[in-house]
Amino acid sequence: MERTLIGELEKHVGETVSISGWVDVRRDHGKLVFLDIRDRSGKVQVICLTDHPEALAEAQRLRPEWVVRIEGIANERPEKMRSEGMNGNIELEAVKIIALAQAQELPFPKDEKVNLDTLLDNRPLTLRSERERGIFEVQATIVDSYRRSLMKQGFTEFQSPGLVGGDAEGGSAVFKVAYYDHPAAYLATSPQLYKQIMVGVFERVMTIAKVFRAEKSSTTRHLSESTQMDFEMGFINDEMDVLDVLESVMRDVVTEVAEKHSDIFALLGAKIPELGKEFPRITLRDAQEIVGSSENDLDPEGERKICEWAQREHGSDFVFITKFPASARAFYTMPDESAGPGLSRGFDLLFRGLEINSGAQRIHDYGEMVRRFEQRKMDTNKFSFYLQAFKYGMPPHGGCSTGLDRFTMKLLNLSNVREAALFPRDMNRIDTLLHGNGTSEN
Amino acid sequence: MERTLIGELEKHVGETVSISGWVDVRRDHGKLVFLDIRDRSGKVQVICLTDHPEALAEAQRLRPEWVVRIEGIANERPEKMRSEGMNGNIELEAVKIIALAQAQELPFPKDEKVNLDTLLDNRPLTLRSERERGIFEVQATIVDSYRRSLMKQGFTEFQSPGLVGGDAEGGSAVFKVAYYDHPAAYLATSPQLYKQIMVGVFERVMTIAKVFRAEKSSTTRHLSESTQMDFEMGFINDEMDVLDVLESVMRDVVTEVAEKHSDIFALLGAKIPELGKEFPRITLRDAQEIVGSSENDLDPEGERKICEWAQREHGSDFVFITKFPASARAFYTMPDESAGPGLSRGFDLLFRGLEINSGAQRIHDYGEMVRRFEQRKMDTNKFSFYLQAFKYGMPPHGGCSTGLDRFTMKLLNLSNVREAALFPRDMNRIDTLLHGNGTSEN
Repeated sequence: MERTLIGELEKHVGETVSISGWVDVRRDHGKLVFLDIRDRSGKVQVICLTDHPEALAEAQRLRPEWVVRIEGIANERPEKMRSEGMNGNIELEAVKIIALAQAQELPFPKDEKVNLDTLLDNRPLTLRSERERGIFEVQATIVDSYRRSLMKQGFTEFQSPGLVGGDAEGGSAVFKVAYYDHPAAYLATSPQLYKQIMVGVFERVMTIAKVFRAEKSSTTRHLSESTQMDFEMGFINDEMDVLDVLESVMRDVVTEVAEKHSDIFALLGAKIPELGKEFPRITLRDAQEIVGSSENDLDPEGERKICEWAQREHGSDFVFITKFPASARAFYTMPDESAGPGLSRGFDLLFRGLEINSGAQRIHDYGEMVRRFEQRKMDTNKFSFYLQAFKYGMPPHGGCSTGLDRFTMKLLNLSNVREAALFPRDMNRIDTLLHGNGTSEN
Repeated sequence: MERTLIGELEKHVGETVSISGWVDVRRDHGKLVFLDIRDRSGKVQVICLTDHPEALAEAQRLRPEWVVRIEGIANERPEKMRSEGMNGNIELEAVKIIALAQAQELPFPKDEKVNLDTLLDNRPLTLRSERERGIFEVQATIVDSYRRSLMKQGFTEFQSPGLVGGDAEGGSAVFKVAYYDHPAAYLATSPQLYKQIMVGVFERVMTIAKVFRAEKSSTTRHLSESTQMDFEMGFINDEMDVLDVLESVMRDVVTEVAEKHSDIFALLGAKIPELGKEFPRITLRDAQEIVGSSENDLDPEGERKICEWAQREHGSDFVFITKFPASARAFYTMPDESAGPGLSRGFDLLFRGLEINSGAQRIHDYGEMVRRFEQRKMDTNKFSFYLQAFKYGMPPHGGCSTGLDRFTMKLLNLSNVREAALFPRDMNRIDTLLHGNGTSEN
């Protein structure tokens, strides 16, 4: 008999069907066993009665996470036994049960709330919980929605390399790779230089790229490997064109996520973000005034305060901070002396108290770029490949990069970015805890 | 004036418009200058006349790859001056030309056919040629089409890690990464173990992942970094269910690529693949008989011959080879003694003489998996994370992996896989040639 997805059972009331999935919960009342069976499309309650003794006997043998195929009759539940949600009016009467795979006894019930180390140590199991599955269903929607929003605006996707020949940006802590008999290669800390090269080819480009940073800190918002959603666009007037596209993308993403996953937001106790009429755009200087900061940047406390302000004054969970000092940004950032001495066209997008995106208009003139290298005492030879793009004609352009893990974390009200990465890597963990001298400060 | 994309000019005949792009070609006849201007949407001929002396003077200064904004009138061309293709009936009469960025003299005309090293040494420039842009437009469509085909079949996308804790599969040459003060980490050679874990979560999963192999060979079909398109699915009857999904995906991809990019196929001298009524599926043993091979595998010559056979007998550029010996496949491959002693449910998909996809039904039973480890003298401790998925109930499942670069190469009739990767990495090259003792055998 062909498999029926559990989410499609409503169309088969009264019919004999075959479902497949995992035993989510089993309640044994002796002559009556209830099973909650889970597949990718949802859950249903299965009832095993003495009318079908072989099925009942098999049901008594089942344990959580066993994999089963069950043939049965999709009965309508009696009126007073109905519940809300999927298949709340259906009960599958088991006629035949086939165990496809057994499971050992679980170390803890899979939906139980556990501490972060236990959660990650047991990831192949804990990912099966409703909560964890929900997080990564939402994440898949974010990525898909982000891409489609950009595609409809004329962006072309490209594959950015993970292995790079040098520590291009300098400053960031990079991972070194033994590369045949050559001195060294590194893991990419950003697709930045490549997406700029690609602006010369397709004007508007995007990439979902893995980036790697050997940061020797163990905070709730840093990972050694993370997923970035980048875009870069040519023929802009200034960085405000980039903000426009980014805002449209975030609106598309939030709208789609809210439409498709309101149940997961409810489950996680997360609120659908407020988008306001438009995301406020304020300069760093104005932001500092609002939060009463005297720093040259916004510290984490300042980021939280300015987000509260945006929420309160503009009904928006997002806020753009613009005109960062050039000295605080990467070498390729376009200066903006018109905004004030030493300022630039670099910006951040903050969301619920955290920077989730950073971007800028970039320098596009070859001569100006070379002068910038000289000012910063950087070696142009190391960047000869990148500089070709500028040598042979680059339009005014800009772009930005959204941290997928960070955005997922804040969107779903998670307290640690490790919960928003399927297989998080940090100083002390690659799947399993690493031995060594590191201490975990989660 | 707002920018009009060159591909939209047909809607603006008779109007004054502003276009932006690169000078593709410039033909200077003194009092008359013709420019071909290129943007992401296409090309148009611009004519600069003495009627607009400032524009003419600026046009005389322009050189290939300068970046310009041009305001002008979108005139219809005289009947006898029309050509085929985009804007063949339009000529933009330049009224005002603004140079947005200059370009240095090109080392060679960007559309000139050059040897592979020159092509790659000058990638930021050569990618702008019609031919190279075409290759990566097609590649973007392949990736998008592959994903959408799987999404409509219920697959969930996930992000597979690039950094792994061990050389999981053994055998493959891996790159070692210095990881804080821990012994070592490695670059992933495949998302295999993670996608199996994810079958336990979402049943049907896919990922586009970078994989890294430190192969000390320099062939026309190997790269140190490549992009793989993977999927894995649970609750299968056997590997034929995987073949069914893979065939449907390849049909979707080829159909969409053919619809959207027939011009690029023509430009590259590539044929649209023939799909036949169905892709032939033959066992390795039968394939060996057909090509008259006595080996335990198909050698490159055998792969070419069997593809010729599939083309001739079944009108298909694709052919599945099934039932590989278990000994020739990875440890997690499901054996199939019913097909013959020592055989397995591993398969390859060949396309135009080359293996572009490899897959299998996998072992799903925990006990059987552990026995397989023992047979192969592998350390289960190193795989404890992965094995959790099996310990806690895994459905029968299988999947496969398509090499994006290889598939692009064969689809577009390229002679070297390096032409099908934007920024190919090999023993001797990461963007620029690496110094050292390696010799290039391209």
